[in-house]
Amino acid sequence: MKDYFKVDEWKIIEEGFDPHYNKVAESVLSLGNGRMGQRANFEEAYSGETLQGNYVAGVYYPDKTRVGWWKNGYPEYFAKVLNAANWIGIDVTLGDEPLDLAKCEVLTFRRELNMQEGYLKRSFKAKTESGKEVGVESVRFCSMVDDECGAISYTITPLNFNGEITLTPYIDGDIVNKDSNYDEKFWDEVSKATTNDGGYLQLRTKKTGFEVATATKIVLLQDNAPLEFESTPIEKEKYIGTTVKVNVGAGKSITLLKYAANLSSQNHSKEELANKATAVINRVAAKGFGTILAEQAAAWAEKWKNNDIIIEGDAKAQQGIRFNIFQLNQTYTGEDDRLNIGPKGFTGEKYGGSTYWDTEAYCVPFYLATAEQKVARNLLLYRYKQLGKAIENAKLLGFKDGAALYPMVTMDGTECHNEWEITFEEIHRNGAIAFAIYNYVRYTGDEAYLGDYGLEVLIAISRFWSQRITWSADREQYVMLGVTGPNEYENNVNNNWYTSTIAVWCMKYTLEVIDKVKQADQAKYDELAAKITFDEGTESGRFADIVAKMYFPQDEKLGIYLQQDGYLDKEQLLVTDLPATERPLVQKWSWDRILRSVFIKQADVLQGLYFFEEDYDLETIRRNYDFYEPRTVHESSLSPCVHAILAAKLGDVERAYQFYLRTSRLDIDDYNNDTEDGCHITSMAGTWMSIVEGFGGMRVKDGMLSFNPLLPDEWKALSFQIGFRGSLLNIRIAKEGTTVRNLSDNSVTVMLNGASQLIEAKGEVLMRT
Amino acid sequence: MKDYFKVDEWKIIEEGFDPHYNKVAESVLSLGNGRMGQRANFEEAYSGETLQGNYVAGVYYPDKTRVGWWKNGYPEYFAKVLNAANWIGIDVTLGDEPLDLAKCEVLTFRRELNMQEGYLKRSFKAKTESGKEVGVESVRFCSMVDDECGAISYTITPLNFNGEITLTPYIDGDIVNKDSNYDEKFWDEVSKATTNDGGYLQLRTKKTGFEVATATKIVLLQDNAPLEFESTPIEKEKYIGTTVKVNVGAGKSITLLKYAANLSSQNHSKEELANKATAVINRVAAKGFGTILAEQAAAWAEKWKNNDIIIEGDAKAQQGIRFNIFQLNQTYTGEDDRLNIGPKGFTGEKYGGSTYWDTEAYCVPFYLATAEQKVARNLLLYRYKQLGKAIENAKLLGFKDGAALYPMVTMDGTECHNEWEITFEEIHRNGAIAFAIYNYVRYTGDEAYLGDYGLEVLIAISRFWSQRITWSADREQYVMLGVTGPNEYENNVNNNWYTSTIAVWCMKYTLEVIDKVKQADQAKYDELAAKITFDEGTESGRFADIVAKMYFPQDEKLGIYLQQDGYLDKEQLLVTDLPATERPLVQKWSWDRILRSVFIKQADVLQGLYFFEEDYDLETIRRNYDFYEPRTVHESSLSPCVHAILAAKLGDVERAYQFYLRTSRLDIDDYNNDTEDGCHITSMAGTWMSIVEGFGGMRVKDGMLSFNPLLPDEWKALSFQIGFRGSLLNIRIAKEGTTVRNLSDNSVTVMLNGASQLIEAKGEVLMRT
Repeated sequence: MKDYFKVDEWKIIEEGFDPHYNKVAESVLSLGNGRMGQRANFEEAYSGETLQGNYVAGVYYPDKTRVGWWKNGYPEYFAKVLNAANWIGIDVTLGDEPLDLAKCEVLTFRRELNMQEGYLKRSFKAKTESGKEVGVESVRFCSMVDDECGAISYTITPLNFNGEITLTPYIDGDIVNKDSNYDEKFWDEVSKATTNDGGYLQLRTKKTGFEVATATKIVLLQDNAPLEFESTPIEKEKYIGTTVKVNVGAGKSITLLKYAANLSSQNHSKEELANKATAVINRVAAKGFGTILAEQAAAWAEKWKNNDIIIEGDAKAQQGIRFNIFQLNQTYTGEDDRLNIGPKGFTGEKYGGSTYWDTEAYCVPFYLATAEQKVARNLLLYRYKQLGKAIENAKLLGFKDGAALYPMVTMDGTECHNEWEITFEEIHRNGAIAFAIYNYVRYTGDEAYLGDYGLEVLIAISRFWSQRITWSADREQYVMLGVTGPNEYENNVNNNWYTSTIAVWCMKYTLEVIDKVKQADQAKYDELAAKITFDEGTESGRFADIVAKMYFPQDEKLGIYLQQDGYLDKEQLLVTDLPATERPLVQKWSWDRILRSVFIKQADVLQGLYFFEEDYDLETIRRNYDFYEPRTVHESSLSPCVHAILAAKLGDVERAYQFYLRTSRLDIDDYNNDTEDGCHITSMAGTWMSIVEGFGGMRVKDGMLSFNPLLPDEWKALSFQIGFRGSLLNIRIAKEGTTVRNLSDNSVTVMLNGASQLIEAKGEVLMRT
Repeated sequence: MKDYFKVDEWKIIEEGFDPHYNKVAESVLSLGNGRMGQRANFEEAYSGETLQGNYVAGVYYPDKTRVGWWKNGYPEYFAKVLNAANWIGIDVTLGDEPLDLAKCEVLTFRRELNMQEGYLKRSFKAKTESGKEVGVESVRFCSMVDDECGAISYTITPLNFNGEITLTPYIDGDIVNKDSNYDEKFWDEVSKATTNDGGYLQLRTKKTGFEVATATKIVLLQDNAPLEFESTPIEKEKYIGTTVKVNVGAGKSITLLKYAANLSSQNHSKEELANKATAVINRVAAKGFGTILAEQAAAWAEKWKNNDIIIEGDAKAQQGIRFNIFQLNQTYTGEDDRLNIGPKGFTGEKYGGSTYWDTEAYCVPFYLATAEQKVARNLLLYRYKQLGKAIENAKLLGFKDGAALYPMVTMDGTECHNEWEITFEEIHRNGAIAFAIYNYVRYTGDEAYLGDYGLEVLIAISRFWSQRITWSADREQYVMLGVTGPNEYENNVNNNWYTSTIAVWCMKYTLEVIDKVKQADQAKYDELAAKITFDEGTESGRFADIVAKMYFPQDEKLGIYLQQDGYLDKEQLLVTDLPATERPLVQKWSWDRILRSVFIKQADVLQGLYFFEEDYDLETIRRNYDFYEPRTVHESSLSPCVHAILAAKLGDVERAYQFYLRTSRLDIDDYNNDTEDGCHITSMAGTWMSIVEGFGGMRVKDGMLSFNPLLPDEWKALSFQIGFRGSLLNIRIAKEGTTVRNLSDNSVTVMLNGASQLIEAKGEVLMRT
């Protein structure tokens, strides 16, 4: 799959059409604006392989759980990302011949995602079965300015014939979810109306009762001037459309502009949805396509100003990072604290639910450095608001007294994943949520957050850990039985080092924060303790006892931490022993073989060493890295970025570069053979981390930014921007040295390769290599 | 639920109707004849809680596997026990009021299973909403003599009114499986015909294409004499019926006899099914109800002659064992080597598939001692014939070179279970299949079986084990990673002692049998070795190396074998610490809590000590028993019997008695709160074992039967019959001593409490207590 897309610093370009890769291209070239999004499906009908997808943020369906054998504790429902009404559709008929690229000879084809200005452009020439040749050019985007709107300009040119062309722009709500447990459709119709140039369709989701009104308005242009047209409105069950017939001469073009608005009952009252959608669409259409496209480019320029990372001398690497930043910005803007970052964003529906531990472990750092502080804070508050449900969730599994287990996958705080080995056992997610609080406070210095919200979450999480561990009378230590670590290629293991480490860290940090909050505001602390009936004597004592007496598996001889009990009993193969035909393992090996093998899906011990690097010396990190990396198959998108950061830390710039390429081009190059289902959105934040924390060596220590730069040989220079506590810095790492420019109006002190540097407002420092 | 049924030595009696227990009663009072069977559903319509079930042996449906997340290696299909056409139905209308006990006042009600003569009798008086009082008596059975037939005598008496009664006996093939993954119906209609007194309905299963023709014939009697009647045949999709209207005076009775035949395409050509079914039904109906009921009683008397176990002085215990023996004989007769013993027999549809390791571990001993030798041999041949599929099954999981993994659940040799932790990991089942070969040869002396069939299976199984173990360079021993033992309350553990023990035993036994077969017939051995390309040098060498260097977990201090690595890290609670409200755990605790806990579902280490008792001294067995039994919740039906046998062996007669009661009355008393799904048929053979091997202390050593009797205080005497190598012995254990009578025409030597005793033909010995 490598090299399917052309390399370009600002675009992802598909040149020529290969139906076999269509679903991959539909994923990679997806559009979104944080509020709605869609796959890069064709506007006209296509009977070939395609995964149709239009999504509205926050609108989901609780599909009845499907399992072979029900186990106590399974959630009843699994929240599905909903495939919503298709508003891009334009059926095209040439005479009486429907235009369908699967049935044409495709003479030329180009689809490109313009990341700089935020639109998708597609152009092709095709010859129909009867010999008609036609050219099409479409431009489409989801507006960042009017984030309930999208627009399409669809230009069609008969090349070798004169005649009637029928265009039927439509909104189709009678769609299916590919990911449906019982082949049900999830939408019901509420109401609809059509006019000669558009109409609206209002739908309601089953069970959840979300309503979405999708309004549309069409304009016909010839030679850039509006063209009067006659049309026939169509209304069907969950469908509205408008049929327009025009006669076009050979070589002449006709352009259909289609505006659409998607308004959800999450943001408007249900009664007003239809009227408001119509009003919005009229307002946006009145601006005109050219205007809103220019607004779109301007909005993206603003995003890029702070978000862009520039890699000089390596277009492939440059394309990779821009693609990642672009998709992250399309997925989540941080405006709405009810939303989160689904693992596929608006690019597919796999992995139902919108929130995983990915958010805390991978995405929070990106938003901390590239967006206003409230964005990361909103991500934290999202979990705070769901604390009650996390406590409920733990209760279902038999925990008590306010212990919280955050869900593995969720939309509204309710657990909706249903593999026991993950749902009940991949509990390290609780640790990532605590770590994000630590990380946020470390980065922003917003210690008030702890007393207001953080401590309540921390205590609930520590309560969970303190009940989840077991005192082993045999070892005279605490042990952690029956868990699944980040490496999901092991299930139900005992004493996973990462899980035990983050659990103990949680309890230690909770004890610290208790002290901090008490010192800052004893009354506030007392109020919280009363609210959650926290018995400090007993409970803190138990936390401290566990911290002191926890068992961590390790091997003295090798000087490494053991991923879990018994890891060294496995046959000690290396990834280099695996023939290419057996990769990816998850697609080629039976599950039991994977479980028994030494091979690791993603960073596990190394994830812990990454989070808590300050607690370990460099040689310990190196020994563990040298042991585990050769056993890691990186079949999780979340793996290469952590390895890139550690490789950079250990000075192995070439390995760091390879890992960077892998993480940044994971979807463009379809590394894991699964991009057709959608892009790996959350790991894109990991890609950002691999640049900034890896090559930039950025850390926060004692309230200061610190950099230890490292530049791959392949690059002339690397530069990125970091927002930190009200300052904005530009860091440029080049062969000759690293320049830090202070773009803000106040001076900033940073650490550069361990030396403290004061940078005046608007000033810069250069540290020569 | 205890004491719902009346205690009676030969009957199970439900007196009075409690709709809440109807499904349990339907299970317990089920009927079967090895060829077909059914739950004790009512003939007339019943709109209350009921699980309708009619089954035809060997007819199944491969329902598409349902899982939340597909894993490589899952079987595509899960074989379902099919709910087949309902042939018992008789709709009854009094005037224009349908008779439905859910809508009547039930004045009297009695349902009884006559185990001595093999029929179900039901009688009730009920008052309809309009005040009509009616009495009904029905007698029903599945014929052991004509095993494709069943018959019903249904007598109805208006008690306080004169008037028209409409009877509509029918065959309904438009039935649903309760256990269906996608709510599909599994039967299609092939053909049907009706006459004034019956007709037939031929159905075909989807996918598998089994066809079953069900024919029926009705006769009306008044005062024991045939009554002419007018009738209206009814034909609907997958349904035939006949409506008969009769006028009956108050206090007068009318009897409907309904004969039915179920012929399957497994035994007849599809083309002839309908004609043959009609011929069979005519032949049987011509005998008359009284005659075939008498034949039924005679057939059962013949069964009981050899199978009965008599417990004197304890009616409850007597009822328990007879119920178990009765259900086993209803389920499997051993006539057909394509059939096996489904875990629910003909009493329910849960646990799809018909064959589990239960057959080899629990049922083979029962049939060895109570049936002709060919019955146990047929059970062994069933697996031999499926060896190819077991090799395919192993291949799917990545094994090679003729390694065989027998399925966890199957109908035709294909795996059809789909929980990874069981399907891929509960591999000890392979060991039970090898053990059954050993057990059969030990019991029968049929050593020729080894060369003909046994060794081929043993080598394939040992090949599997030799690939499934792992050399631990760290321990310098072989280990067994990622298994689930018989105790399914632990999943994916390392070094389950039972699995490792039976695996090593398999390899050791295979090596012995290789020598035996070579000595007996070198040419036969060479032929087999060539056929399966067995490289004795390399492969036997590897088997021997594993036997020599296998790791077995144990604790020196406690002097016990460890169920698995890390078992002592668990919180060491005892079952006595569990409040009753938390039992059964599987219904009250979340799965992860069960997995982490110390509690054991069924004998695991103890199962191994039971199988291989000769390899362990009594004190070792006692230490392990004393450690594990208090941690065992017996939530598998297969657990108490093994504990009963071990308790008896250890001389703890009171515990053995308690375990015996629990296993023998598991369904009658609904111990595990799950009898409504069907009875636990395979554990019933375990009940038999707990009597014969437990209280009888029967073993086979050096080609001889050996007894070490033990009598519970509650019993006056216990007697049972044992067939052994052409001899038949009656053993009677009484307070004063044990009498062994030799019922055969040749002398037999047995061991009694360790002393050898020759018993002449027709002679007996008494060993005083």
